Amino acid sequence: MILAPMQIPKNLAELSSEPLHASLAAASMESMNLLNNIAGNYPEAISFAAGRPYEGFFDTDQIHEYLRVFAGYLRSERHMTEQQVSRTLLQYGDTKGVITELIARNLAVDEDIHVDPRSVVVTVGFQEALFLVLRTLRADDRDALLAPSPTYVGLTGAALLTDLPVLPVPSGEHGLDLEELVRRLHAARDAGHRVRACYVTPDFANPVGVSMTVDDRHRLLEIAAAEGLLLLEDNPYGLFHRTPDRRPPTLKSLDTESRVVYLGSFAKSGVAGARVGFAVADQPVRGGLLADELSKIKSMLTVNTSPIAQAVIGGKLIANDFSLVAANARETAVYQSNLTQVLQGLAKRFRDDAGVTWNEPDGGFFVVVTVPFTVDDAFLEHAAREHGVLFTPMHHFFGAGTESRQLRLSISTLTPERIEEGLDRLAAAVTSRLPGASPADATAGAVS
Amino acid sequence: MILAPMQIPKNLAELSSEPLHASLAAASMESMNLLNNIAGNYPEAISFAAGRPYEGFFDTDQIHEYLRVFAGYLRSERHMTEQQVSRTLLQYGDTKGVITELIARNLAVDEDIHVDPRSVVVTVGFQEALFLVLRTLRADDRDALLAPSPTYVGLTGAALLTDLPVLPVPSGEHGLDLEELVRRLHAARDAGHRVRACYVTPDFANPVGVSMTVDDRHRLLEIAAAEGLLLLEDNPYGLFHRTPDRRPPTLKSLDTESRVVYLGSFAKSGVAGARVGFAVADQPVRGGLLADELSKIKSMLTVNTSPIAQAVIGGKLIANDFSLVAANARETAVYQSNLTQVLQGLAKRFRDDAGVTWNEPDGGFFVVVTVPFTVDDAFLEHAAREHGVLFTPMHHFFGAGTESRQLRLSISTLTPERIEEGLDRLAAAVTSRLPGASPADATAGAVS
Repeated sequence: MILAPMQIPKNLAELSSEPLHASLAAASMESMNLLNNIAGNYPEAISFAAGRPYEGFFDTDQIHEYLRVFAGYLRSERHMTEQQVSRTLLQYGDTKGVITELIARNLAVDEDIHVDPRSVVVTVGFQEALFLVLRTLRADDRDALLAPSPTYVGLTGAALLTDLPVLPVPSGEHGLDLEELVRRLHAARDAGHRVRACYVTPDFANPVGVSMTVDDRHRLLEIAAAEGLLLLEDNPYGLFHRTPDRRPPTLKSLDTESRVVYLGSFAKSGVAGARVGFAVADQPVRGGLLADELSKIKSMLTVNTSPIAQAVIGGKLIANDFSLVAANARETAVYQSNLTQVLQGLAKRFRDDAGVTWNEPDGGFFVVVTVPFTVDDAFLEHAAREHGVLFTPMHHFFGAGTESRQLRLSISTLTPERIEEGLDRLAAAVTSRLPGASPADATAGAVS
Repeated sequence: MILAPMQIPKNLAELSSEPLHASLAAASMESMNLLNNIAGNYPEAISFAAGRPYEGFFDTDQIHEYLRVFAGYLRSERHMTEQQVSRTLLQYGDTKGVITELIARNLAVDEDIHVDPRSVVVTVGFQEALFLVLRTLRADDRDALLAPSPTYVGLTGAALLTDLPVLPVPSGEHGLDLEELVRRLHAARDAGHRVRACYVTPDFANPVGVSMTVDDRHRLLEIAAAEGLLLLEDNPYGLFHRTPDRRPPTLKSLDTESRVVYLGSFAKSGVAGARVGFAVADQPVRGGLLADELSKIKSMLTVNTSPIAQAVIGGKLIANDFSLVAANARETAVYQSNLTQVLQGLAKRFRDDAGVTWNEPDGGFFVVVTVPFTVDDAFLEHAAREHGVLFTPMHHFFGAGTESRQLRLSISTLTPERIEEGLDRLAAAVTSRLPGASPADATAGAVS
């Protein structure tokens, strides 16, 4: 589909003279557009940029199969007539969703999280769940949110939409720095802020790829209890662990006092195209649950999540006996193999004395590479144009005006051949900026 | 599925002590909950309350058929490989959506609206489209929105979520009172407000059911041009006209200066369970279009609309040669027949001197009945409990503290038998409140 250039007639009302919402002028918004533009300008480049699920096992027949499985469940387990089945799929639906019970069963099987389905709200992806929580909690200008720095751009975006300031907490080799968390929390309170929650991704956090230790998870819950702090747990990558049966416990599974709102995504583990996520919000509020308040906000925002989209996810859960660990066995193997290949490939291409280092996550989608020069967007553009490789400069995850010598590699969508070729190109791009090394030196070890 | 009563442990963090977002305490939010609770308490009552599409032609096979038709279109018209088709349906997608071109074709066929697909943003129903526009336009505390009074509760909800005050404009027999509109606009500006837009539903507006005259549509566009006022046109019911080929033009089809943002819904005309709507926003902003700004907000809110849900709507559009007028021929006939039956049924049941009157829309889902007593929620509860009939007291569409002697009947989901029985029950409920009339009198004419 090729569109003619747009003609914008001269007589149109021009809205630019009046201000728009501040989120649209935020640095993070500009930076995401810039990244998208660079990626769009170099469609042939090998991309370590996108944190998307692997496509090699995609099959559109699955949509039909999952829909049929879900309809069968409505008939047999929920004893619906044909009329009720078609109403469930085709009509407006309950605001909290039609698969809350299936999600509760999945959480019990995969995460040892045991929750009442009434504390679950099905959302249009993780992102809507996050927005609902932030919109609910943000009452006035005193309110603020704590979040690790660097952090996921979607967190920054949802906070912008709700006019909620994000106060950064340094994040190290094992995620959130807990001493700093307490310090920043107290400082924020001293400055008059009401800190409504702390956002945290304990497993393979985007963008750093690292995980919290089990001890730190317990300590974080103790801090939350002692300080009266709500935790927002984001867990899109936890499933993709080197040894899936030895995954560390989620915060929510350790949470006996409802200190944790668990924000779930099926974009990586279910079907990205369904755009279904959820919140588990079992906090008591006004005689009900926080989930009830989220549901009220949702009724004003998207009314309900498409029951057809929910049925696709529900069908996948049922078809896999409620285990997404089992459903993703093939994908997890791909991610592990890709991660190992990238880590070994970096070691082959960068000599010890080159000043290039990287972290070594146990799973997830991301590896962070540190280089001895500033990784700005000009370097990304150079790498895309001259070397045909894309990645994400880490400064985008810190906020406006930050410099960084790091870049994020996403390992999730590439084939082994593309990874080898991509690492060759990355090594050439990096080496071109290293003092005293010629590109030929840098790629000498590339042939594996 | 029967759930045990929830046990809320004593040691849980209680969020109630801290304030939540003001929208959650708004009168309109409480009133919607109250209506839902009354409806939930009387599941056997005949409901004239829900403005939902007719279910008599629902068929879950259509979901599969529409998905197949859309996949075929991707292969043949957009020349996609199988890999690209499955990526389009199963992966994250473009923020603006994958059916923008199909929607543009539908608007051309059904509404004589001709727009570039790049000015279309596919959304999670009309409601998200409305939120995106209000969030984009609301920059600071000076901003306000004009809207008819009474108005759709979803407008009130989206405005609450964006902290945007809604300034009411009286709405009469032909919708928005244009003299009042100008007066209120000037008064708002004099009071220091920046009026960002006026929300309007020209066709069969919820809750009143009336339509603007063609002359008024032209005048409204002239006012918009003279005053520099943006119009937000909502059109969920326009299709369901007594004579579909003589529908009055939408504002957008008359709009030569991009004064109108057209907010579309497929919930009544497409598939409600897909939760797909859209915005047409061709206003120039910062060298691009307003649609581009909406898309940026959407990237922080829901990322993209489920391409599976979009495919269901896209398939329905393709399968009906892009005409939802044609696709809804059977449904339109049902709505017309129901509307006629309700209007005639009211005339049969209420004598001229009873002080009960109603309007007579040419289509749409709603009829408003005026009675000689206040229709409060206690009367609704009485009608549900004693007479087994549900409707919507009109005061819910006016705002906090308003009294009204009107009630809204929705005619869209009932069968002829249920309508007769429901009108008998309504007549009995109303008559029980009329001075000097016995219930027996009131239902005497009910047997048709």
